[in-house]
Amino acid sequence: MKDLRKLFKKLPLTIELKEDSLRIINQTLLPEKLKFLKLKKYSQVIKAIAMMQIRGAEAIGAAGAGGIFLASLEYQKDNAKGMLKFLKRVGQKIVKTRPTAVNLAWFVNEILKDLKSSSVKKLRTEIYQRCQNLFCSEMEDNLKLGKYGNDLIKNNVRILTHCNAGSLSSIWFGTATAPIYMAYLTGKKIKVFIDETRPWLQGSRLTAWEMSRVGIDYQIVVDSAAGYLISKKMVDLVMVGADRIAGNGDTANKIGTYPLALMANECQIPFYVAADTASIDFGLATGQEIKIEERGSAEVLKDLLFHRRSVSPKKAKAFNPVFDITPAKYISAFITEKGIFSSDKLFLLKNKKNDS
Amino acid sequence: MKDLRKLFKKLPLTIELKEDSLRIINQTLLPEKLKFLKLKKYSQVIKAIAMMQIRGAEAIGAAGAGGIFLASLEYQKDNAKGMLKFLKRVGQKIVKTRPTAVNLAWFVNEILKDLKSSSVKKLRTEIYQRCQNLFCSEMEDNLKLGKYGNDLIKNNVRILTHCNAGSLSSIWFGTATAPIYMAYLTGKKIKVFIDETRPWLQGSRLTAWEMSRVGIDYQIVVDSAAGYLISKKMVDLVMVGADRIAGNGDTANKIGTYPLALMANECQIPFYVAADTASIDFGLATGQEIKIEERGSAEVLKDLLFHRRSVSPKKAKAFNPVFDITPAKYISAFITEKGIFSSDKLFLLKNKKNDS
Repeated sequence: MKDLRKLFKKLPLTIELKEDSLRIINQTLLPEKLKFLKLKKYSQVIKAIAMMQIRGAEAIGAAGAGGIFLASLEYQKDNAKGMLKFLKRVGQKIVKTRPTAVNLAWFVNEILKDLKSSSVKKLRTEIYQRCQNLFCSEMEDNLKLGKYGNDLIKNNVRILTHCNAGSLSSIWFGTATAPIYMAYLTGKKIKVFIDETRPWLQGSRLTAWEMSRVGIDYQIVVDSAAGYLISKKMVDLVMVGADRIAGNGDTANKIGTYPLALMANECQIPFYVAADTASIDFGLATGQEIKIEERGSAEVLKDLLFHRRSVSPKKAKAFNPVFDITPAKYISAFITEKGIFSSDKLFLLKNKKNDS
Repeated sequence: MKDLRKLFKKLPLTIELKEDSLRIINQTLLPEKLKFLKLKKYSQVIKAIAMMQIRGAEAIGAAGAGGIFLASLEYQKDNAKGMLKFLKRVGQKIVKTRPTAVNLAWFVNEILKDLKSSSVKKLRTEIYQRCQNLFCSEMEDNLKLGKYGNDLIKNNVRILTHCNAGSLSSIWFGTATAPIYMAYLTGKKIKVFIDETRPWLQGSRLTAWEMSRVGIDYQIVVDSAAGYLISKKMVDLVMVGADRIAGNGDTANKIGTYPLALMANECQIPFYVAADTASIDFGLATGQEIKIEERGSAEVLKDLLFHRRSVSPKKAKAFNPVFDITPAKYISAFITEKGIFSSDKLFLLKNKKNDS
């Protein structure tokens, strides 16, 4: 196995907690520039999430947790009870930034739950430790997920992925990319096809950046070409992430995932969802209950990344749903940090990590 | 029925033959500016096709025919036989500009076949008349296609279309848009959802422009969202054009069409292909024999429409197939100028228009 530390050098941590700050990769500048932001105030964390400088379910969650720690540094009085109240208010503010991201609330809750108010100083230390432990265990979980997923990847395999469920969407190593990186580290020859993923181009901007940094062979396709690749047997399997998984296995993921799964089923290649078990929402019986976020027209109609020039007629309107729901029956397996599960076995994960 | 002449005012002819020139809409400037190009030399026609100033199977074919007429004006000697030879060479050059477009060869051939070499002047008149007749009959065919297609459209129908098989892809009125315009003219309330159609954005640039000019309610979606619209029953039918149809009904059309048809089949809504019968290639038994054009990486990786800035890592490569093949079994019906046909009845059209 190639050295994991070498991968660390190629692929920096997406988010890192320091003793006085939170360091994140500014994802809006990728792939052109790799620049880090040093956040010292919780309000800067909220701004970074809102501006998409950090995105991806797990990465946002970690940023939220770090925001609580920054708030604990900002609190000036020597009043532990007052500090706890303040931190809860901050937590609510942070969670509101992107209310549909289930992991954000999960991370913030992990930091705040059952905190004891002995002293301001001890609370700060406790929060710092909780953050660091959480970041570490999440990274370890992604590595575990990668090991399980690697068992499904043979040598010379061609993998199609959608959007970025990569290292940049997590603290490090990613979810859909975890089996890919593990396959790479264990010396397998792989090729990755990346959907560009309109309207934000997370595929051509972020996933392609990760592959180019690590040195994995890849090609970008327009989202419409993914079906062609599958139908022409140019890919052997599809691997995507998940934003929320219902109890029956129906999966909300970036818009365009459902047609990929349908085409994979049509052409009889495996379709895998790689996700942390925290993404499973047992409170929802089926995917029909998952609320789909709809965003503004401008993301579709304007050349957002560059000069905001319109590509459509002046009064044009777009319909811009961000996710779709892939029916469980089209998902070959769920790859998680606790192993590989079919949709009818997901219930075994109930009351585990996500029970909080 | 609303006046067809009013539609003429809203939607100008895509291509028009004048006595000394060929006038085309410069499609690269849409939707921002409606500007016409006056072409006086056949070499200008070739350039306009190559630069995508005119695109779409029928429109390119018509431009090719007009190019032959311009060449006849350019020929200086008083030698009818020499002129015919010259025009044949010009015809070959024109057809080469986009060798995969079957209609281009068909139009050029319609102008050149069985031309008699009585005198240079008479030849010019003959070619001019052939062009005008061809342009007229093609427009009439699109109107006929529209009438047949309109029978399939009820009031309050929501239609999804992909790319631009509109008036801009034809001389006037279009193919996939013909039933839409006819429904509009007969007073039906309709709504059109338009796939933006990466990488060239013919949907958000061209089809949206047509709908906005005519005044038909429309919304643009990213290509990945089309499956969501279908699965959520937000559209009642899908209507697309065709670039080449094999004898068994397998249909080559803009990349992304096959997944649309698969999703329409999954959700049990009709999927229609609207095309001139000249698009049927009875020389091909199935779609597997249709060659798929692959274009350069830059169309996908760079911000072509504006500043050619890259949206992906420096050494990134894209795979850029332009068409895919929709299996005949997923096409509910073919709407043509000769009526509506299921794929197993297409053979009835053999030796009709396309027999040349």
